[in-house]
Parts: sequence; structure tokens; C-alpha cells
Amino acid sequence: MNNLKLVSKSLPEHNSLVQLSETVTFGGQEITIIGGPCTVESLEQMETVASKLQAAPVQAIRGGVYKPRTSPYSFQGLGEAGLEIFATIKQRYNLPVVTEVMAIAQIESIAASADMLQVGSRNMQNFDLLKALGETDKPILLKRGLAATIEEFVNAAEYILSHGNSQVVLCERGIRSFDNYTRNVLDLGAVAALKQITHLPVIVDPSHAAGKRELIAPLAKAAIACGADGLIIECHPEPEKSVSDARQALSLEAMIRLVHSLQPIAAAVGRTVALPTRELAVA
Amino acid sequence: MNNLKLVSKSLPEHNSLVQLSETVTFGGQEITIIGGPCTVESLEQMETVASKLQAAPVQAIRGGVYKPRTSPYSFQGLGEAGLEIFATIKQRYNLPVVTEVMAIAQIESIAASADMLQVGSRNMQNFDLLKALGETDKPILLKRGLAATIEEFVNAAEYILSHGNSQVVLCERGIRSFDNYTRNVLDLGAVAALKQITHLPVIVDPSHAAGKRELIAPLAKAAIACGADGLIIECHPEPEKSVSDARQALSLEAMIRLVHSLQPIAAAVGRTVALPTRELAVA
Amino acid sequence: MNNLKLVSKSLPEHNSLVQLSETVTFGGQEITIIGGPCTVESLEQMETVASKLQAAPVQAIRGGVYKPRTSPYSFQGLGEAGLEIFATIKQRYNLPVVTEVMAIAQIESIAASADMLQVGSRNMQNFDLLKALGETDKPILLKRGLAATIEEFVNAAEYILSHGNSQVVLCERGIRSFDNYTRNVLDLGAVAALKQITHLPVIVDPSHAAGKRELIAPLAKAAIACGADGLIIECHPEPEKSVSDARQALSLEAMIRLVHSLQPIAAAVGRTVALPTRELAVA
Amino acid sequence: MNNLKLVSKSLPEHNSLVQLSETVTFGGQEITIIGGPCTVESLEQMETVASKLQAAPVQAIRGGVYKPRTSPYSFQGLGEAGLEIFATIKQRYNLPVVTEVMAIAQIESIAASADMLQVGSRNMQNFDLLKALGETDKPILLKRGLAATIEEFVNAAEYILSHGNSQVVLCERGIRSFDNYTRNVLDLGAVAALKQITHLPVIVDPSHAAGKRELIAPLAKAAIACGADGLIIECHPEPEKSVSDARQALSLEAMIRLVHSLQPIAAAVGRTVALPTRELAVA
Repeated sequence: MNNLKLVSKSLPEHNSLVQLSETVTFGGQEITIIGGPCTVESLEQMETVASKLQAAPVQAIRGGVYKPRTSPYSFQGLGEAGLEIFATIKQRYNLPVVTEVMAIAQIESIAASADMLQVGSRNMQNFDLLKALGETDKPILLKRGLAATIEEFVNAAEYILSHGNSQVVLCERGIRSFDNYTRNVLDLGAVAALKQITHLPVIVDPSHAAGKRELIAPLAKAAIACGADGLIIECHPEPEKSVSDARQALSLEAMIRLVHSLQPIAAAVGRTVALPTRELAVA
Repeated sequence: MNNLKLVSKSLPEHNSLVQLSETVTFGGQEITIIGGPCTVESLEQMETVASKLQAAPVQAIRGGVYKPRTSPYSFQGLGEAGLEIFATIKQRYNLPVVTEVMAIAQIESIAASADMLQVGSRNMQNFDLLKALGETDKPILLKRGLAATIEEFVNAAEYILSHGNSQVVLCERGIRSFDNYTRNVLDLGAVAALKQITHLPVIVDPSHAAGKRELIAPLAKAAIACGADGLIIECHPEPEKSVSDARQALSLEAMIRLVHSLQPIAAAVGRTVALPTRELAVA
Repeated sequence: MNNLKLVSKSLPEHNSLVQLSETVTFGGQEITIIGGPCTVESLEQMETVASKLQAAPVQAIRGGVYKPRTSPYSFQGLGEAGLEIFATIKQRYNLPVVTEVMAIAQIESIAASADMLQVGSRNMQNFDLLKALGETDKPILLKRGLAATIEEFVNAAEYILSHGNSQVVLCERGIRSFDNYTRNVLDLGAVAALKQITHLPVIVDPSHAAGKRELIAPLAKAAIACGADGLIIECHPEPEKSVSDARQALSLEAMIRLVHSLQPIAAAVGRTVALPTRELAVA
Repeated sequence: MNNLKLVSKSLPEHNSLVQLSETVTFGGQEITIIGGPCTVESLEQMETVASKLQAAPVQAIRGGVYKPRTSPYSFQGLGEAGLEIFATIKQRYNLPVVTEVMAIAQIESIAASADMLQVGSRNMQNFDLLKALGETDKPILLKRGLAATIEEFVNAAEYILSHGNSQVVLCERGIRSFDNYTRNVLDLGAVAALKQITHLPVIVDPSHAAGKRELIAPLAKAAIACGADGLIIECHPEPEKSVSDARQALSLEAMIRLVHSLQPIAAAVGRTVALPTRELAVA
């Protein structure tokens, strides 16, 4: 890994924190969990998601308003209308918002409504987008490309940092392989490697890796066990009705159960998962 | 291949022509060859290339002025200064110019200096760039992504056509595999498939596939034998001094020999390769 | 490519001949074509195939009697009964026979009935089988593993040669990738590389690479254009009724047309394809 | 997954036990750990390994005596002399022995000295070997092929079971990808899937997946978190002097530390890891 000036570790214990909100941080002792649907479909949908996930608790809510779709004739996302939904959600619920930015022209409006800008896999080497995001002061969630090497991945982050923004979280989300039983192959060796190479927080997206909801819980546990700092997981009030990626979305109930089940694994590696507010309330 | 409205063939003999200049076309009976360096380094370099390739003859000259580099600290291309070199080359030599566009903001200035805008592999699913290029009237050279399926590739072209620009040439340039003996694996099965799926011209880049100059000639011949409509090949006045991709660049002399050697293969599949002007002059 | 003592070239023009029969050789000026069904199903089937292919002409006939099947419950081949069919075919038609050997225990009986022993992709690194075949005096057709590097492939051949048998022909048959539009990805860069690394003849199997009969002809042409010494192609009297690989088998008529169409490509690279006997008879 | 009669689960809670010795079982509540060098080099080496690992404790010792090597000129293993070392080790230490069988002819002698026969990745679809192992009464450790799909993997196990031997343990050991930072990509999604598809025990080899010793601990933890029933890990008294795979071998001290560190992860998923005998002795 030559040529890395800003993302590489000076010492094994060198780990950066990326601040998502006053109370939510990536890279600390607490595992940071982002949940939400693949696509923002309506205010009602997002209110249902936010109210349930807030109590789970997850630390942030996700949802796509600009969607990278293989076909130009597939639903491309609600766009500006989706950003307005986010504004409402942020006002009513105490949940930071994460959403994908696909173009430089979208940065300003998305940054006004969202707390973290996601660079999707297909844009991991969209270098002009990376440079532009390097000039913002928003936390960036950088997803690994579908066939990006670890070296290319950390260099993509280096683009953002070298343009001035050090608030970058890396996300392993599975790489392409010859086997289509799972949608992609979750590369936890890359997560372990990234934690040794870079001081940036590293999270894992088991949903896009698995492509099948019944595989998500074991992969989420594995991710935390191998050192991931967080998770981003797709969930939906009615998974089978999701406009995209229905096969991999968890129900909100399954999402809550999953979050709870992660606590012992986190503890086993010296980390914590936040406890549910209702349980706290009872206590 | 559902969802394709504009790029798919109605009949086996349905083949579109893409016009690069008054005299240069992709998709006709003549094989169209694009040559030139990976990176535009200086006017002197490009004049040497243009004068030699004009006589080869090749039909168009390529060179990168905005370069997608893995590291932010690698040379990023001459940018505007490179476009000025192109303007000079176009004035002095009768060669259309092909160069890569990496961002929407570059389209206008590149379109003013170049005849064909290349979308690089890393941007094949940069959908906002594809949409913006769909609103231009310039021919587009769309390179296949490093791990893009054939279905994703033709859908990327569909994005451009569905936004109004039907002047798209597809380029197979090798896909990622487990073997690093070659830089990538040239997928000529994809070329054969594309010629059956779509009416768009399909060309092949053996240079990025092979990554080694000694493998380029056999792959160029194979590409034409399996039905490719053209080639894009890296060559340089002093390959070993190339600022990028030195290992895969042909010398200009080797490039000229290669072009000549393609004529019998083209003839064997009912196509032609243009004859050198000096030989014509002699005759 | 360290560690290669026997398979590597001393000089670019160093090319070995592998003798299949008195009149059939791999590695000479003439392209050597092997045709036949995936699986030997009956004497009647093989007689139909042999009589048609003899006139095509192809130089050898193939067919599996021991079949490597993913499931233990799939048809495993006719075994000894298939070898008897081969004995009859060899007696009645002037066609050498190529068939797969899956185990050391099969070598003796197969060697008595067949002229060339094929090592299938799944056994390319079955080193004990390679060693045992190295101790026979039969020509070996060594197919590349599904995910074998070029280096592993030539080292597998080195196993055979180092045990005493120098009659080895390499066969590129496609490697695994992320795209399932084609069954595998035909790696003609490997063919070009192998022709530079080793003096052994190299042939191509476009049938298993493509997995779709309509892609076989362009890939066969590409293979010859890039320097392959021969082809092995699946064909069947009634492709849609084939007990295995039905989707990729050519009809015998399509096979004959394909063989004829290869002549101009072969000529373009200084090779020949044998002319049909009936045309010779007419002339 | 059609065509599976014997390896598939009838119910989610259907999990088979594979008995390695009177006290060692795969598939129960206790995680089963196999340790040892890539290659058996000497009796002294194996005594050192056995005495340390016995106290770790690990449940079984591994070591190759027949080695699948890419080159015929690489050390091929001690063969019979290695089996004698195993006989001595078994007599002196209470550790079952696991070693690779590469050919049918080796089965009898290996079965006399070893407790479990390993089928290596290169032989996963050596169907005649699978059938022959199906006729033994020894536990089989079946490693996934380098590019085998999950479906092919479970079908390979089905070959063994359908020939009479139901004592099969599956081992995920990484698959080939485009990135050479890790030697292979550990596919824990496959482990999660296998635990849902089949009742057979599933273990993980993080050593061959990672190829770098510093990545083994996090991957071992991840494997257990996602439901693996055991681990097989390479370790060596002097890793840097190992005759093969030196880069990925743990020191014996690191191996012991790793085993201890797995206990909390195992507990978090309702499993156990055996406690060290010396600690027990102290207590």
C-alpha cells in the first residue's frame, strides 16, 4: 500500500472517530448501526421505519432517494421529494439520515437534508465525485466497488481526505464472484485488513452481500466479531412490498431482534451495542 | 435481456452506423481503428503519433487528458492544456480525436475539442454522467466496467440512448479475474453476444485486456475474427517512457505493422482494413 | 514462470507436434478439429456422428463415457459399454477417438479403446492422475481448470512431461466469472500467452466456454485467429435431445458449416483447415 | 438445490454429529479446532506441535504427508514416512490426526494411520476419489474447491454419502477472486448458507483464506460468530522456516492465544471452546 498519506495507520491503536451527530459516532467503542429501506417510498413508510428503529435502537436511518438502477426504466428514486421526507423525519425523530449521492450536482441539496452522504459501489472510482465530496464537511460513507481491490478502496478514500474531508467511513458490502447463491461474497478478510491498514472506521453491509434475508443475521454477527465498527442493514415495514431489493430486506421486527442479538458478540470483542430505549424505560 | 427498448436488435442484420467524422464510421464494412497513447503528454508527442498513425492508417487518435488514476497523487492528466493540444492536432492532421470524459462539468469543453467522448470502465454505471452524455450530440465510446455483466453493459448504453443520443459505440476491454498473468481477461464471448443482442457497433481494446504488448496482436486478430467492428489500441513514440501503462503500449512501428497484419483477417470475415496512404501513393 | 523445465519454449519458433494417429497431428500447419457429442449415448448415435464428421472433415471424434457430473444422481456415462462403441467406431471409420479419463483405474481400458485421453477441468490438478498419465504413451488432452491460472495450467502439463509423456495438448475452455450470460469466459489472452510460454500445442473448446450454440462460430474463428492449433466442439445428431449440455451442442449440419467457414480465417494466419472429402471427390 | 437426497436438512434443527474419536465430535455444542503445520517435516517437529497443541487445547492435529503442489519439482511430502510419524504421534499424544488423501491408492495406508481423511480443494470434484471415500468408514473433511459453487460443494458431499459414508465435515477455505491482498476470499455467506442447507458440520480454514497470519484471528472469530462448527488453522514451531505456506502459519504460542480468545465469541453464540488443561490443572 504505497502512496497512502492520509488514510494509513501510524500505529495499530490509531483509530479515527467519525462524528455523525452530537451523539452518534463511528469508530468508538460502541457499534454503530444504520437501518432502513433500500428506497424511500413515502413519508408514511419512513415514519413507520423511524419510530420502530429509534426504539431498537439503531443509531441512524438510511434510504435511497437517488437510486442507481441498472435500467433507465426502473424507478430512479423520489429525488427532491425524498429529501423533504428526510427533513420531516429528522425533525420528528432523533435519527441522523444517511443517503446516497450519485452526482456532484446533488451534493448541496442532499447535504442540506442528510447527515451522511453515501458513495455507492458503482461510484467508488467516480473520482470527480470523490474530489467534490472531499470539499464538503459532511461525513461520507464510501462503499467498496463491486470488483474493487482493497488497495483501490483505500485509495478512493485517500481522494476524499486529500481534498480536505477526513470524515470518511468505509463500507464492505460484498464483491462479485462466480456463485450466485448469494448476491455477492462478503469479504470479511478485507474488513480485517482494512482495520490494520487504515485508521478510518469500517462498517459492513450484510444485506447487499447476502441478497437473502435469512443470511443477514449470521453475517452481521461475523462482521462484528472480526472487528467491524458498525453495520448498515436494509429493513422495511413490509419487505415483500419493497420497490427494490425485496428479497434481502428484513422486517422491522426482525431488524430489532437482530440488533438485540448482537450485544453478546459485541461484548465478546470488547464493544457495545446500544440497549433498547423501552427496556431502559422499564428499568 | 428485458427492459431494452432502444439498443436491442429487431433483426439479425440490424446494425447501426455511428459517424465519427465525414469519412470515419463505426459499424460499416470497414474495421475502424483508434490508436494513440494512454496519456497526452505534450504537443510534440501527439504530433509524432498523429503523423505516423495518419499514414498507418488508423481512423482516429486517442489520448487521455483527464485520467482516472487509482491514487490521487498520480498524474491526473494535462486537462485543459491537453484539450488545446487536441485542437492543434485536429487542425494539422485529418484525424478525429477520442478522449475520456470523467465528469459532467468536463463535457462542454471536451466536446469542443474532441470528436468522440469516452466513458471509462470505472464510470460505466455513473448514471448521471450517462444521462448528461445522452443529451449531447457527440458520439460516445462506452467501455465495459471491470466487473459489469453483459446485461449491465447494454443497459448503460440504454441510458444514453433513452436520453436522446443514439451515437454509442460499445467497447469490450477485459474483465477482472483471478489470474494476473494478463491484466484482465478479454471476453470475446461478450463481443459475439453483444453483436447478437444490440445493433450498436462493438469495438475491442486489447491493450487494457492484455496489459502486455506481446499479446496485443493475437487478441486484435481474434477480436476482428469474432465480429468486432473496430479496435482501440495504445501506442506511444517511446513506450518505455510512457507516463502510464508503459508495459502495454506498442511502439508506433509495431502499431503500423499490426494494422497491416489485420487486413487478411478482416477479409476472411467479409470486412476491410484501410490500406496505408503511402502504399496508395506509390500505386 | 519459474520451475518449468520441459514445457517451456527455448525459442519463439519452438513448437512441438503431438501425433494423434498416422495422419492426424496437433501443432502443425493444419488446424486440428475434434467434434462429437458431450456424452456417448448409443452406437447408432456415434455412427451417425462419425459418418457425417468424417466427411466434414474433422480429424477426430470425441464423446464422454465416464462423465464428471455435479450430482451423483445424474447419468454417469456408459462406461465400458461406451468403450465398446468406440472400438466399433474406430474399426468402421477412420477417426481417432478422444475421451475423458477420470481415474487411474480407468486408464488401461480407455487407452485400449481411445487414441487420446482427456483430463477434464475438474481434474487439472489431480496430480496423481497426471503422474499416472505421464507414465503412459498416449497423447493427453489437458483441459484448463475452471479457475486455474496460466501458471498452474502449464505446471499441470509439466507434471505429465516430467513423468515421461511429452505428448500433451493444452485446451483452453473458458474460466469462471461473475457473468452467467455465457457459461464461462473464453480466455484467448491465455491462448496467446500459452503459445509464447510453451512449445505444446494449444487448442480451444468454444462449446463449454459459450454454453450457447449461437456463440460458438465466432469464438471458433477468434480462437484460430489468435493462434490456436485446433478446436474441440460439441455436436449432436439432435442437439435438443442430448442427455447433457444440450444448449451448447451444434447440429451436425451446423458443425460441418462451421468447419468450412474456418478455412479463410486459417489461411489469414498461415494455417489450413482440411477440405471436405466430398468436395475433393467432385474436384 | 435440487437433487440432494442425503445431505440436505429436513428441519432447521437437524444437525448431524461426526465422530472423530471417542471424545472429539464435530457438530455438537463444542467448537472443534484442528491445528498443525501445512506439511509434516519431521517427528521432532510434530512432537513439538502435538505437545503444545494438546495443552491449548486443540481437538485434533493436522499435517500434510501427500502434498498437492503446483509444480512437480516442489517437495511432494514425506509420504509413508510421514504416516509413520503420525502413528507415533497418535501413540504418544491423545490427538486424532487429520491428513490429506490425494489418490484412491493412498486411502488404505492413510486410513491406517489417520483418523480423518481430508479431500483438498483441488480434488473436490475428483468424483472417483469421492466415491472411494464413500466406501470407507473414516470421517472425511471435504474442502471447498477454489471456484466451486455452494451447490457443487454440497453435491460433492452427496457423492460421499450416497456411497455409504455419512461422516462428512464440510470446510470453507476461501475462494478465488480478483484481489491478491488476501490469498483467497473467505466466504462466510457460504458457511451461513451451508448451515441452512445441510445437516453436516461446517468448519472454516482461515489460514488458506487469509494467506497472512495477521488476518487469521479476526477471521476465526468471524467464522464462529456466523455459525461454523469448528476451525482448521495452520501453525508451526518456527513459522518462518515452514517448508510451505510460511506466510500464513501461526506460531504455536499465537495459536494457543487464538484458541483462548475464541471462548467469549463461542459463548456469545451458545457454543463452547474447550479450556486449556493447564488452567484446569491449576483450578
